[in-house]
Amino acid sequence: MNTSFTPTQAARLDSYKRAAIIGGGVIGISWAAVFLARGIDVVINDPRPDIEDLVRAGLDEITPTLAELGLPTEHLTDGLTFEADLASAVVDVDIVQENGPERLELKQRIWQTIEQAAPAHALLASSTSGIPATAMAEAMRRPERLIVGHPFNPPHLVPLVEIVPGEKTSAATVEQARAFYAALGKKPQVLRKEIPGFVANRLQSALFREAVHLVARGVVTEQELDDIVTASIGMRWAVAGPFRTFHLGGGPGGLPHFIEHLGRAMEASMWPALGNPTFDDTTSALLVKQAREAFGEGTVNALATVRDRSQIALMRALDATPDSGDTRRA
Amino acid sequence: MNTSFTPTQAARLDSYKRAAIIGGGVIGISWAAVFLARGIDVVINDPRPDIEDLVRAGLDEITPTLAELGLPTEHLTDGLTFEADLASAVVDVDIVQENGPERLELKQRIWQTIEQAAPAHALLASSTSGIPATAMAEAMRRPERLIVGHPFNPPHLVPLVEIVPGEKTSAATVEQARAFYAALGKKPQVLRKEIPGFVANRLQSALFREAVHLVARGVVTEQELDDIVTASIGMRWAVAGPFRTFHLGGGPGGLPHFIEHLGRAMEASMWPALGNPTFDDTTSALLVKQAREAFGEGTVNALATVRDRSQIALMRALDATPDSGDTRRA
Repeated sequence: MNTSFTPTQAARLDSYKRAAIIGGGVIGISWAAVFLARGIDVVINDPRPDIEDLVRAGLDEITPTLAELGLPTEHLTDGLTFEADLASAVVDVDIVQENGPERLELKQRIWQTIEQAAPAHALLASSTSGIPATAMAEAMRRPERLIVGHPFNPPHLVPLVEIVPGEKTSAATVEQARAFYAALGKKPQVLRKEIPGFVANRLQSALFREAVHLVARGVVTEQELDDIVTASIGMRWAVAGPFRTFHLGGGPGGLPHFIEHLGRAMEASMWPALGNPTFDDTTSALLVKQAREAFGEGTVNALATVRDRSQIALMRALDATPDSGDTRRA
Repeated sequence: MNTSFTPTQAARLDSYKRAAIIGGGVIGISWAAVFLARGIDVVINDPRPDIEDLVRAGLDEITPTLAELGLPTEHLTDGLTFEADLASAVVDVDIVQENGPERLELKQRIWQTIEQAAPAHALLASSTSGIPATAMAEAMRRPERLIVGHPFNPPHLVPLVEIVPGEKTSAATVEQARAFYAALGKKPQVLRKEIPGFVANRLQSALFREAVHLVARGVVTEQELDDIVTASIGMRWAVAGPFRTFHLGGGPGGLPHFIEHLGRAMEASMWPALGNPTFDDTTSALLVKQAREAFGEGTVNALATVRDRSQIALMRALDATPDSGDTRRA
């Protein structure tokens, strides 16, 4: 694997010397790792008194994965500092990535403070998975500067970043965000409209609803359903998304033929039959019991390490590691 | 890659010398390729006068993919014959894989004929994607022999086979089917209850409904949605199914913690907001237009070849090629 930047990527990051990470939880730590590995100094802003220990421990945990991804990890924390005061933290940064609690009023206050203290050129991005930029920016004097840069967890491993402009976000901010995340080696995707949950989580949630239904109905167990997914739609969608998959599965007529024939049948007979489960006590108890059977008593961290190793092997096979950067597969 | 069977797999296939493929369409040809590559003689039963040309052309197209999967392809068609009469076709076979049109009365007649003509030990399996074995077997004297062995298309490439017993299917038939498909190098999964659409297609259809909604609403284009999926949930679910993914994404508390916190929020706010699109004229026209933009004028076959090459690279990286057989990833 090529551990060096492309010259274009490196050049695009030239103007990003220093980043403020607001909120040093799981997402904040993961972003910090990505920025540091790309040579960007990071200041962490988080009110917790033990934040330095938490972040350093989190980075230690992530480091082997960064190395496997082909990112440089030596001297990773040389550029890492901490600043408990929000205004002081952002005073001389080129990018602010905010990962605070998902509470609207809190985020509105945070962005009001940041806007007043941060340099005028700084990219202002929120990792929020649900609050639109339009709402977060309501108290800002220059709401055109704020944008959502929502990573699919964890940002140091999964390529997607959903870029969601608010109603007042400027075109320049959108392009600045897109170019920045692409230069980091991520796969940014700009959404054309704000919508609750954005795209990836809505899609995930739609499939998961039916998954819960099928387990609650006793058609399969969690483990069996997971095995079905990895052996079929999962490996398909890692290579080609749902539209391309149906385009290639509809015979020589492609997607148009698919819609006309199978699509309408799906609408008529499959969609109305999909389940509408709830996490009532019976269902929750069943899911928890089966989770214990499927995943055992091993720690989540240990299982995640195994999964992430497979994930990286897959990404390498598809040439989708960070340094494959902007390249798009056919 | 190891192109030889494991001794266990080879032994398990020892009793399968000859297969009847009923219906030589896309699925039938793909099954024929898998059986022939495993050394099982195949007789194709299909009333079309040009069936031999169709099947041979289809096998020619599949052969490079079989070779890339590490399956033997020399002398592939040595054991291939054709028999237009259904009863004669099944008279001395060890497995019947039926891929006829999805019409209940037709399938009932076919299975009635097969049952009378096929040897008593033969495995009787239907590739149907929607008709339950219970209904297909209604006219059979020994309905306990019939089972659904539904492949995810195409069977020569995607590992999943959903095994769906009917109400009267015997436990011995279920085990016979499971062992047979596993020995072929597939990933069979036995469903515990009959349900329309089985599992993989229901899950696929649930996600696709929301995908159509998001494109129809103008949130993203087809191409953008596909790129979002491959860069996030697609590559996740290729490695770990949706339950395991949430177990690993819910912090140290795993899936139980996820359900209690994020799951209930998903039920309250995300599920009710999911879309309910229809393939009306406006939506269909938009989908067709965007398909043309996204997939160009290239033939579906050419695009599928590119996709399948990536698919095989992925499977090799995850050790999920046919000869990895029964092994299960953590």
